[in-house]
Amino acid sequence: MEIITKSAHFTSPLYLESGRILEPYDIKYETYGKLNSDKSNVVLVCHALSGSHHAAGLYEGDKKPGWWDGLIGDGKAIDTTKYFVICSNTIGSCFGSTGPMSPQYPSNEPYRLKFPVITIKDMVKAQKQLLSSLGIHSVHTIIGGSMGGMQALQFAVDYPNFAKNIIALAATYATRPWAIAFNKVAMEAIRRDPRFNNGNYDKDEFKEKGCDGLAIGRIAGHISYLSPQSMEKKFGKAYVPTDGMFELFGRYEVERYMEYNTNNFSKMFDPLSYLYIIKAINTFNLARGYGSLYDAISRVKAKINLISFSGDMLFFPQEMEHLANMLKRLNKKYNYIEIDSDYGHDAFLVEIEKFDGIIKEMLKEIDEQKF
Amino acid sequence: MEIITKSAHFTSPLYLESGRILEPYDIKYETYGKLNSDKSNVVLVCHALSGSHHAAGLYEGDKKPGWWDGLIGDGKAIDTTKYFVICSNTIGSCFGSTGPMSPQYPSNEPYRLKFPVITIKDMVKAQKQLLSSLGIHSVHTIIGGSMGGMQALQFAVDYPNFAKNIIALAATYATRPWAIAFNKVAMEAIRRDPRFNNGNYDKDEFKEKGCDGLAIGRIAGHISYLSPQSMEKKFGKAYVPTDGMFELFGRYEVERYMEYNTNNFSKMFDPLSYLYIIKAINTFNLARGYGSLYDAISRVKAKINLISFSGDMLFFPQEMEHLANMLKRLNKKYNYIEIDSDYGHDAFLVEIEKFDGIIKEMLKEIDEQKF
Repeated sequence: MEIITKSAHFTSPLYLESGRILEPYDIKYETYGKLNSDKSNVVLVCHALSGSHHAAGLYEGDKKPGWWDGLIGDGKAIDTTKYFVICSNTIGSCFGSTGPMSPQYPSNEPYRLKFPVITIKDMVKAQKQLLSSLGIHSVHTIIGGSMGGMQALQFAVDYPNFAKNIIALAATYATRPWAIAFNKVAMEAIRRDPRFNNGNYDKDEFKEKGCDGLAIGRIAGHISYLSPQSMEKKFGKAYVPTDGMFELFGRYEVERYMEYNTNNFSKMFDPLSYLYIIKAINTFNLARGYGSLYDAISRVKAKINLISFSGDMLFFPQEMEHLANMLKRLNKKYNYIEIDSDYGHDAFLVEIEKFDGIIKEMLKEIDEQKF
Repeated sequence: MEIITKSAHFTSPLYLESGRILEPYDIKYETYGKLNSDKSNVVLVCHALSGSHHAAGLYEGDKKPGWWDGLIGDGKAIDTTKYFVICSNTIGSCFGSTGPMSPQYPSNEPYRLKFPVITIKDMVKAQKQLLSSLGIHSVHTIIGGSMGGMQALQFAVDYPNFAKNIIALAATYATRPWAIAFNKVAMEAIRRDPRFNNGNYDKDEFKEKGCDGLAIGRIAGHISYLSPQSMEKKFGKAYVPTDGMFELFGRYEVERYMEYNTNNFSKMFDPLSYLYIIKAINTFNLARGYGSLYDAISRVKAKINLISFSGDMLFFPQEMEHLANMLKRLNKKYNYIEIDSDYGHDAFLVEIEKFDGIIKEMLKEIDEQKF
């Protein structure tokens, strides 16, 4: 599988849901596989909060492949010998697409807190612009998990003729207060970090030492990505052998894990991007702009495939079920599957063997129907 | 109901589980009702993480009564016309008992990070000393929720002849990694707060402005005390009317609630005490020192009443059930009740009407059996 990484530059304005404009803007994206002659084999992959355009394959010299490499590749569920797969970095993120640390044209200074608030709707609009610029005006499937699933669903509502098939995993129809509360930890921890300095931080310092606020917020995130059961299996009550049980800062293994993961993360992810993306997640609501969820879902033409995970402690299966019930009530083509898993929210990233066969079938169905 | 608030000073050493010694130490405590002639009507109430000795009644000039006022009082479930109720502030806490900000004898300087790590076992031992000093060598009932429930259970294991009756609500037999992970947010947020200054903070500054690290950690705490359902009922997706939807720091009502509660809390609670108490919660394990949970529970002589709440997202009903099964297996006198509630962990504090009748019965049963 060949990995092609590119960046597209747009000089026409992107009109945002807030009423503000993003202009110019860049979108970093990656493609795998080949576009067929009638352009009917496009699979758009949407990433989650901490993801990037690098969904699959291994960069030269890297040890870790893209974030959904288990699912995407030659002969895999999203078969790159068959489909032309595109994944782009969302606007607002920090892996090459325009975000808060991008220069605010015409200056060379980063936007920082002057960057406009971005919504899931805006992320989707920007991706649609990217595809248009590539001459792609409709796609086979849009797939994503968590925030990626939100984007897939938003595509189905905002651009009903664009995709034949939607696959949303571990997502919801509108972010509930429980998830917003978890994001609040990061919001406050970053905002109150003195080195964050109201957005005027030293980027290089954070890259070297990490951002404390982001690390702390990310611990709360990690809790919501796991589950009591997965933590029990992973760590039980094991104590770090080199730490003293009666030292105040002695740690259980679960604590060491949280430290390790979040410290690294706080060096490689930009805290302003994190704030803007969790804001986009918080404000996600398919109903907004359409009066009600019923009215929003009424617009849908694609087949909607919903996959939830029984142990998801962030976006609970009941939320996907609510959406499935709405689709049923409106006589839409849909499919709702709850995967039995006690891993937690991150099951969509780590338990791929539990659902890759299902996704393969969901893609095949569209190929066979040729509708 | 008369509230009597006192402080007891102990000059003999308290030998801690860590091998260290606390000497001297003070215990602040409160009593309601009257001790009867044969001292058979003592109910010991144990408080949770943020609680104090002020369990019931209203101080002159205060608007809020003690933290379990709905349960304790004349004619209430824990009837103060009948029982002599004692509640003491745990060692390590910050409401009058010896804690990290107490002077380290013989100096006048506070211990700060030199304070020894305290465990639930130590808290229980200190309370037993307090009761001994009052001439009380056995009690009718020990009751508590959350960390208070841990203490009640630890009493039953460590001092099998001390209490006839144990009532533990919303607790567990050993803190699981899920709960430890929530505490990790507070641990890191406080520790990385520059104003915390490795424990050498200005106490008055925090009292005035609050401690950011503690406020952030407390947000994570609040998530674990509620539930997705209770947040949904309380806040839904309501947005603060004066905040803009597309302002980065615009807030949903759930976010405002978290801010409000945690900012106030971070002014009135001491961050070092918070660290020491969550450490005590993290290390709670009835089995420690006895080889296994089975061996620990084998020691129990009291009737053990366990009350869990179906929507508790911190100490799950399954944990209490595990303990109930162990008690059953060992032929111990026990009672396990799961209260149907979607409020979350804090149900033991706020949904008193759901269990006060049950507690009244659990107390009455001991009175009638006179064993």
